[in-house]
Amino acid sequence: MPRYKMILDLDTGIDDALALAYAVGHEDIDLIGIIASYGNNLTPVTAQNSLDLLNLLGASDVPVFYGASHSTTTDDFTVMEVSKTIHGQNGLGDVTVPKSERSVSDQSGIDFLIEAAHQYKDDLVYLPTGPLTNLALALEKDPAIAKLIGQTTLMGGALTVPGNVTPFTEANINQDPEAANTVFQEQQKLTMVGLDVTLRTLLTKKETAEWRALGTKKAELYADIMDYYIDAYYNLDIDKRGAALHDPLAVAVAVQPDYIDTLPLNMKVTTDRVSGDYGRTIGDTDKLLDETTSKAAVLVDQERFVSDFQNMMLKVLG
Amino acid sequence: MPRYKMILDLDTGIDDALALAYAVGHEDIDLIGIIASYGNNLTPVTAQNSLDLLNLLGASDVPVFYGASHSTTTDDFTVMEVSKTIHGQNGLGDVTVPKSERSVSDQSGIDFLIEAAHQYKDDLVYLPTGPLTNLALALEKDPAIAKLIGQTTLMGGALTVPGNVTPFTEANINQDPEAANTVFQEQQKLTMVGLDVTLRTLLTKKETAEWRALGTKKAELYADIMDYYIDAYYNLDIDKRGAALHDPLAVAVAVQPDYIDTLPLNMKVTTDRVSGDYGRTIGDTDKLLDETTSKAAVLVDQERFVSDFQNMMLKVLG
Repeated sequence: MPRYKMILDLDTGIDDALALAYAVGHEDIDLIGIIASYGNNLTPVTAQNSLDLLNLLGASDVPVFYGASHSTTTDDFTVMEVSKTIHGQNGLGDVTVPKSERSVSDQSGIDFLIEAAHQYKDDLVYLPTGPLTNLALALEKDPAIAKLIGQTTLMGGALTVPGNVTPFTEANINQDPEAANTVFQEQQKLTMVGLDVTLRTLLTKKETAEWRALGTKKAELYADIMDYYIDAYYNLDIDKRGAALHDPLAVAVAVQPDYIDTLPLNMKVTTDRVSGDYGRTIGDTDKLLDETTSKAAVLVDQERFVSDFQNMMLKVLG
Repeated sequence: MPRYKMILDLDTGIDDALALAYAVGHEDIDLIGIIASYGNNLTPVTAQNSLDLLNLLGASDVPVFYGASHSTTTDDFTVMEVSKTIHGQNGLGDVTVPKSERSVSDQSGIDFLIEAAHQYKDDLVYLPTGPLTNLALALEKDPAIAKLIGQTTLMGGALTVPGNVTPFTEANINQDPEAANTVFQEQQKLTMVGLDVTLRTLLTKKETAEWRALGTKKAELYADIMDYYIDAYYNLDIDKRGAALHDPLAVAVAVQPDYIDTLPLNMKVTTDRVSGDYGRTIGDTDKLLDETTSKAAVLVDQERFVSDFQNMMLKVLG
């Protein structure tokens, strides 16, 4: 009996694909839906990727919903060139995954999130791995969910290390700093899993070779996808030792918080476009002595996590 | 029998004056010397202030040495206007402290530090509350001290909160980011006590009124000095609740580390003048998986520290 109802809000994306597989495989997680975010690609692409991966993994009972197609401060969204370089033109390393016959749900992802918050309350884990636009829109529509959702564990931000878009700004937060600031100001029981920890969790081609050796179609495709990502990390000199397990780490710590050490801290996201640090996740000096509503992951047991992640992938892909 | 030999490197300064009193009063600290740094004022002023305060507190056996009079990248130093506003024209809230009859030592503070490192090794605590210029110069002259000094606990920097000079830069680091980066890269057993924690430790006029009630001359002068600082914090809207115990907190945690929680992290100081974050103290992404040589204070038991600090001041000033 899974302990958690989980909604993944994914801009699928290679590490999103890993997060999805990890959530599908974890015995403590009942994956009740995926919201398709813009970010690594456009929502039609990220939604289709999630449908196709769920189909590939034999999890075709999980519904996929559309989230917002662009940030709260823009009218449309264009995929950044660097996103295509890291995740491929199709978001999955230009690997062709068999098309699912299912469609995206008619219900809006934002309404789905609000309903789930009221239905599952403390049991619900909301886990965004892209921009925080959908949660900000849901909070605007129904502020009650700020306290209702059991935990919100997000992949994004950078507190004790520089960002990866600017020295101050991490890519997910950068897509919609205003929405992110709304979330950091309002959402309760918030855990930020940022570059502080995710950059320490590296996967290599040694592990993907073990996937490939399983001999299944899904293992081969996932290995092809992940090798593209590892090559991109190498070629862009992000890290020559391996590729970071950003999104799956967030899923893992949502249900096994002992992978990380967290710092309780009330944070804000800078939305001032002239101060030079637009999109920075940083402690809110005005709230240093207040009760904390959020915490940031600052240390991770990377060896144990990467080892457990690998075992999970071997189970899911076998 | 004091457990630690301590060198204070002070740009005295109001909270430096508190740090000095705290170190003089603490039974575990043998204060073996004070190095006079530029920063809150010019070195002739900060050296004289330290001599006068030592005299006032009956600690005229502690020698005072000159450190560098300006940063490693400049030829001279001009006191910032905001320093005068916060610390007064004379560095001590424009309060007149009786002049000491002693003089500054002939030996250079940098040579004194190097000698003490070799003499006391693990027992030595080096505690700078201003720029890190003197330690950087000492490291250049004798790199061996990087491993010899038992611990270096510095007041400065900001990791999880914005800076107080720019959104990225704290005032002490800002005086000489190049020297600070040398220290963060080279010095072992380094603890950064930054704005992350010091902004949480606030003293008010309730406490200085208790000093005043002791009825001694030194208590009256210290209360006058500290009230100037509390007023400056109020008038500049730094904090209307009280004034931060930056420097004395660093002294306290050097000998009682259980006041704080620390994050082990290899840090750097940004010395790139065009990136917009000159002088930022931040984790070094290239060293995230390396053994750590430094740690940053990220949480503090502020109520216990402020209470213990007050008791120490009542003892020292009584």
